[in-house]
Amino acid sequence: MQFTAQQIGILLNGNVDGNPDVTVNELAKIEEAQAGSLSFLANPKYEPFLYQTGASVVIISEEFIPSAPVTATLIRVKDPYSAFSVLLEKYNTLKLNKTGIEEPSFIHPSAKIGEDVYVGAFAYIGAGVVIGNNCKIYPQVYIGDNVEIGNDCSFFPGVKIYYDCKIGSDVVIHAGTVIGSDGFGFAPQADGSYNKISQIGNVIIEDDVEIGSNSSIDRATMGSTIIRKGVKLDNLIQLAHNVEIGKNTVIASQTGISGSTKIGEQSIIGGQVGIVGHVSIARGTQIQAQSGINRAIEEEGKKWAGSPATTYSNQMRAQVIFNRLPELERKLEELQKKLQENINKNS
Amino acid sequence: MQFTAQQIGILLNGNVDGNPDVTVNELAKIEEAQAGSLSFLANPKYEPFLYQTGASVVIISEEFIPSAPVTATLIRVKDPYSAFSVLLEKYNTLKLNKTGIEEPSFIHPSAKIGEDVYVGAFAYIGAGVVIGNNCKIYPQVYIGDNVEIGNDCSFFPGVKIYYDCKIGSDVVIHAGTVIGSDGFGFAPQADGSYNKISQIGNVIIEDDVEIGSNSSIDRATMGSTIIRKGVKLDNLIQLAHNVEIGKNTVIASQTGISGSTKIGEQSIIGGQVGIVGHVSIARGTQIQAQSGINRAIEEEGKKWAGSPATTYSNQMRAQVIFNRLPELERKLEELQKKLQENINKNS
Amino acid sequence: MQFTAQQIGILLNGNVDGNPDVTVNELAKIEEAQAGSLSFLANPKYEPFLYQTGASVVIISEEFIPSAPVTATLIRVKDPYSAFSVLLEKYNTLKLNKTGIEEPSFIHPSAKIGEDVYVGAFAYIGAGVVIGNNCKIYPQVYIGDNVEIGNDCSFFPGVKIYYDCKIGSDVVIHAGTVIGSDGFGFAPQADGSYNKISQIGNVIIEDDVEIGSNSSIDRATMGSTIIRKGVKLDNLIQLAHNVEIGKNTVIASQTGISGSTKIGEQSIIGGQVGIVGHVSIARGTQIQAQSGINRAIEEEGKKWAGSPATTYSNQMRAQVIFNRLPELERKLEELQKKLQENINKNS
Repeated sequence: MQFTAQQIGILLNGNVDGNPDVTVNELAKIEEAQAGSLSFLANPKYEPFLYQTGASVVIISEEFIPSAPVTATLIRVKDPYSAFSVLLEKYNTLKLNKTGIEEPSFIHPSAKIGEDVYVGAFAYIGAGVVIGNNCKIYPQVYIGDNVEIGNDCSFFPGVKIYYDCKIGSDVVIHAGTVIGSDGFGFAPQADGSYNKISQIGNVIIEDDVEIGSNSSIDRATMGSTIIRKGVKLDNLIQLAHNVEIGKNTVIASQTGISGSTKIGEQSIIGGQVGIVGHVSIARGTQIQAQSGINRAIEEEGKKWAGSPATTYSNQMRAQVIFNRLPELERKLEELQKKLQENINKNS
Repeated sequence: MQFTAQQIGILLNGNVDGNPDVTVNELAKIEEAQAGSLSFLANPKYEPFLYQTGASVVIISEEFIPSAPVTATLIRVKDPYSAFSVLLEKYNTLKLNKTGIEEPSFIHPSAKIGEDVYVGAFAYIGAGVVIGNNCKIYPQVYIGDNVEIGNDCSFFPGVKIYYDCKIGSDVVIHAGTVIGSDGFGFAPQADGSYNKISQIGNVIIEDDVEIGSNSSIDRATMGSTIIRKGVKLDNLIQLAHNVEIGKNTVIASQTGISGSTKIGEQSIIGGQVGIVGHVSIARGTQIQAQSGINRAIEEEGKKWAGSPATTYSNQMRAQVIFNRLPELERKLEELQKKLQENINKNS
Repeated sequence: MQFTAQQIGILLNGNVDGNPDVTVNELAKIEEAQAGSLSFLANPKYEPFLYQTGASVVIISEEFIPSAPVTATLIRVKDPYSAFSVLLEKYNTLKLNKTGIEEPSFIHPSAKIGEDVYVGAFAYIGAGVVIGNNCKIYPQVYIGDNVEIGNDCSFFPGVKIYYDCKIGSDVVIHAGTVIGSDGFGFAPQADGSYNKISQIGNVIIEDDVEIGSNSSIDRATMGSTIIRKGVKLDNLIQLAHNVEIGKNTVIASQTGISGSTKIGEQSIIGGQVGIVGHVSIARGTQIQAQSGINRAIEEEGKKWAGSPATTYSNQMRAQVIFNRLPELERKLEELQKKLQENINKNS
């Protein structure tokens, strides 16, 4: 994949400033770029790298005026970062352009598979599965019976989707993630043992969702665990049975959400957060990493921190004093002593 | 799978009240059920849904007297929740009734496999493996050399069991869980590097254990990591080398237990808990989610919370005051001032 | 695998004291060992077991003088623990000595594979992959296009390595671990949705690295996520995009490190730790389990604890007083009262 500055200029609708015939074959950060690389400059703080970079081509703002000589060919665009993101995406699309069925793979005769789909070797597609167009089912993926999948999805190697789950279009799931494992439901018995409560629900994932690697999304006891449109989940996340994640909510890695809890739209949840079961978290809630939420949150758009969590500002104040506790105790003891002296003196 | 109210009444030993010929083909919650669904009413709080539900059949208590007209056929039993649980289980047994060997799978010629076993495509069964009757080995499962497995086990897609591990009967392991990976043992060397300590032990899992998805259970350095009868583990749990989990103990997701620690029987451990290595935790211990246990617990049946954990009641009291620390500090400062004024006045 | 005491004595360059013809076929702890086992005694605290052990052979210090009769054959060496470690390693090497290509496996015609390599059934080796000598690629491993791997690596079942990653020699990766999944990068849009930022970098793992099971190591946005020589990572660990882990650093399970953070050499990080993104952690840093690091650490070789973390000693002092907060508040209230009484009395 080799392109000239000219070709990239046309692609990005930008003006080429320098040698239009210089070629590039990779993308790189401006501070690391070498000959043959394409880079970009958006943040003014990185401008000094422009005069030292080995990059052959640099995407830059229309208005930029260099303060020293530049050897790279410049492509001038309105928004260099967006233009570069477009290139990143095109690059990845070219990289990950597999199609066709690799052998051996297992596709049940009753499964319906759309056009231009990639099915990697050792992938398993069960009975009654429906897969839309342009999906990429990487090697060693498992898709259980009667799973329905929209168009343009990518399931990376080793993704496991249990039976009856429903997945929209433009959904990306990374390697090792499990969709639809049993919820954790057991009824205690008189003899101290536990009886399994069968988990017969499913998981519904709407359009434009991305889920990282090695996450676990449990199926509902009955009904559905639901991940709404536009949700982004990181790696090693736990969603328990009957959880619902609202539209465009983002959750960082290693966070766990207990059974039947509902997270509002447009929320932002940090890493290693734990949220108790059977509560609702309001729209636009922000939760600091490592927090523990032990109750419902009703006010929208607030920021929370700590375990158990309080409002972010209260938590920050309390934490500052927590670190001064030895000093606080000393002051209290001095005060006791001083008061006693004063009492003795005046008695 | 379609059943009449009559058939279900016979199955549950209940009395049919209404049209015995109405048919159902799925199970649903009473508030979500539609025509063709079977539901139940156990919690009186849900009674209003009975008069609005679309369910064709509802399982209900023998003694229940409706306070408004009901369109659904009722099946009257002693304990509606238990009766419904039985149906859930039967439903799941029918759903997950695979048997036979799918191709391509890898079964070493020296492996011994019982009757009515399912081996999914791309499953790997190593040399000397012994598998009992009625086991379900889903696609892409790996069973290493000399692993022994009892009867009626289900290992969902992508479970990995390393060599020499021993697994009882009625054990369920969910997708992506790893049994028998190396314990984390390294000896520091004079030059700052670490030498691997080979981990030659195994993992023993007794009967009636269930383990969620993407958990990691390490093999012992020597001897065995042991999960006793009736233990239930959730998703993304870490058990280090030589850990032992006592009978009927339940552990929620993302909890980690460090090397050689022993957890007593009938304990209940919340999610995201961490427990230090080389300690014993007494029988019947309860640990709040996100707690950190940094020492042995000797008294049975106590409840703990916090990181580092204290007794639950102490932790609750301290946390309340933690949140009031700014106020506490202000009071202390006022007191200092007031005392000084008093001293000045009286001097 | 059966050996005589004589053979083991020669192997370890030790002196046999007792019957040289007794045979052993397994390794065991001295307190659990039975006939046919080989054990060792290094820690004097375990000496009583020597006189009761069922072990047929015990490795012991040259200078050891028994205080009671011993039935086991003794092999006397300079350092019993090291000698035993050598045996553990040899035992494991014999156990895990697979070679050859199992069928069915998928090896792209353009892949280059070294000598004496094991490729398990259902393993996938993509286009342009280069694998060195003596590597063990267990069943169901996925190695994406253009991945480069050195010599003497072991990738246990179900490891997934995405395209373009580079792995050194003597690297061990346990089951279910994912190398090179996309970093978690999304740009918020005006309508509340998020646009994916393509992650086109890779992961570089240097020599002598070991990674536990079910961990997630994300690829860089651009450039590389780097794990330096000699690093040891436990299970269920999260390394985000562009993280760099310094040489010989050790990280316990369930810890997460956010994007672009750099961890210094020879650091020791406990389990369930979280570290914020875009910071540097100094060489030789030690971090207590469950800590949260929310800023850069500049001083080398210090110990940290708490969330948010402070120096270990400060944290310990503050935690002690945290547990006494109810008492502290009571004292403060008494003081208030006493002062008021004193003021009233003197006015």
